[in-house]
Amino acid sequence: MQITPEIIGYVAATLTTCSFLPQAILTIKTKNTDALSLSMYSTFTLGVLFWLIYGLTIQNYAIIFANAITLLLSTCILSFKIYNTLKKKPR
Amino acid sequence: MQITPEIIGYVAATLTTCSFLPQAILTIKTKNTDALSLSMYSTFTLGVLFWLIYGLTIQNYAIIFANAITLLLSTCILSFKIYNTLKKKPR
Repeated sequence: MQITPEIIGYVAATLTTCSFLPQAILTIKTKNTDALSLSMYSTFTLGVLFWLIYGLTIQNYAIIFANAITLLLSTCILSFKIYNTLKKKPR
Repeated sequence: MQITPEIIGYVAATLTTCSFLPQAILTIKTKNTDALSLSMYSTFTLGVLFWLIYGLTIQNYAIIFANAITLLLSTCILSFKIYNTLKKKPR
């Protein structure tokens, strides 16, 4: 089997997409988001949404699929972070 | 100005690349990595390395540039996580 750029790209996409699953599991389990950056997850989630729109625009199903999953996971992590940040704010 | 798929793609890439900067700054500043998933950052960093190899293979400078920056930032965060994990392990 020859290693084509497409295969390298698919391995890359699979790894970066799947990587958010253990983070989401850890966050759901511990509910601890102290070390997570709110700016990171806001910017990242917005970026993934743009990737999804990009995939839909050019009708690339690999980009649509990978970013739909990542969007779901990062939105989940971001929601926990926002909830904890609001809870900690003095009233 | 018309919004082309390329522009959407560039916005997406800029957002997801830049998002790791505030996380890296937060981690360097606080040195707290408790809420960060080791599996996430290992898998993600490896994935970004594959994206970089992919970019180099197809000679796409946007992919090379974006992933070189992300690789630098995620390696930095991962290093802190590994250091803290090893430090915490009972001897």
